[in-house]
Amino acid sequence: MGEILDHIEARRSIRRYTEEPVSRVQLESLLRAAMAAPSASNRRPWEYLVVTEAERLAALRRPLVLGRYVAPAAIVICGNMLRALPPPARDFWVVDCSAATQNILLAASGMGLATVWIGVYPLRPLMTLVARALRLPRHIRPLAVVWVGHPAEEKPPLNRFDGARVHWESF
Amino acid sequence: MGEILDHIEARRSIRRYTEEPVSRVQLESLLRAAMAAPSASNRRPWEYLVVTEAERLAALRRPLVLGRYVAPAAIVICGNMLRALPPPARDFWVVDCSAATQNILLAASGMGLATVWIGVYPLRPLMTLVARALRLPRHIRPLAVVWVGHPAEEKPPLNRFDGARVHWESF
Repeated sequence: MGEILDHIEARRSIRRYTEEPVSRVQLESLLRAAMAAPSASNRRPWEYLVVTEAERLAALRRPLVLGRYVAPAAIVICGNMLRALPPPARDFWVVDCSAATQNILLAASGMGLATVWIGVYPLRPLMTLVARALRLPRHIRPLAVVWVGHPAEEKPPLNRFDGARVHWESF
Repeated sequence: MGEILDHIEARRSIRRYTEEPVSRVQLESLLRAAMAAPSASNRRPWEYLVVTEAERLAALRRPLVLGRYVAPAAIVICGNMLRALPPPARDFWVVDCSAATQNILLAASGMGLATVWIGVYPLRPLMTLVARALRLPRHIRPLAVVWVGHPAEEKPPLNRFDGARVHWESF
């Protein structure tokens, strides 16, 4: 099980993909990983939109000014405001959906798939544009888009540990 | 690498721990995993406070009304507002720190350690109480507390997949 740690550390954002599609079975595995994330009060306030059709991918790409990559699939991780906790705990949906998104990234790289996480929340205008492009219902808020494909580039593991960010016992 | 997925799916929240301490090497491994998470614009707006001293653990436990577990260690995942992106992108710190927290949980279970994630953000009064208990500087905001220890209970894997939350191509 020690490889889990190596795996977490080795995972990199990949932005170039081959044309090979991602199978439905693979996409379902990613969603199983997503839904294995813990959530506040076990509320699981998430919905997952999987996009593979070329026209829909193009529509999704348009508003993502900083994330217009060409991948065969995208998973749009969304919060469902009808499932979220009531205020003042409502924004736990952001935390829960972020944990689920990280699970997708790790599961993908475990399967040899490449991903990059494009942040949508908390950028309100971008959230609106993505929701419009995908015709999301009003109570569904996009947190992030994860592009998924087979890698067309390789990146070596990167040591991102910074001891200055660790505080033993007190700040 | 297929085990990564099994691992993600098998991970459970564990709330009972033995008295065996968590070593500094183990804690550092968890922090390496945390800092391997991606972050918006690679900003890494995080700080990690590791608590193992009994009195400090007791002080941290006090405000956590729904998360007063007795573990030999805690990692408090915090956002550093001086490192966060400027508004309107500032709340990416929540997303980034949540991804880092999920990495801690997965790395821990890969090492045979048990964890439970106690949400602090977005509950403002709780954030204030935790910050006060730990004497956090003003620009440091606690997102979550992760209790870490050796498991004193076992839980079987749980299938949390819900096909109703998956939307193929459109809602």
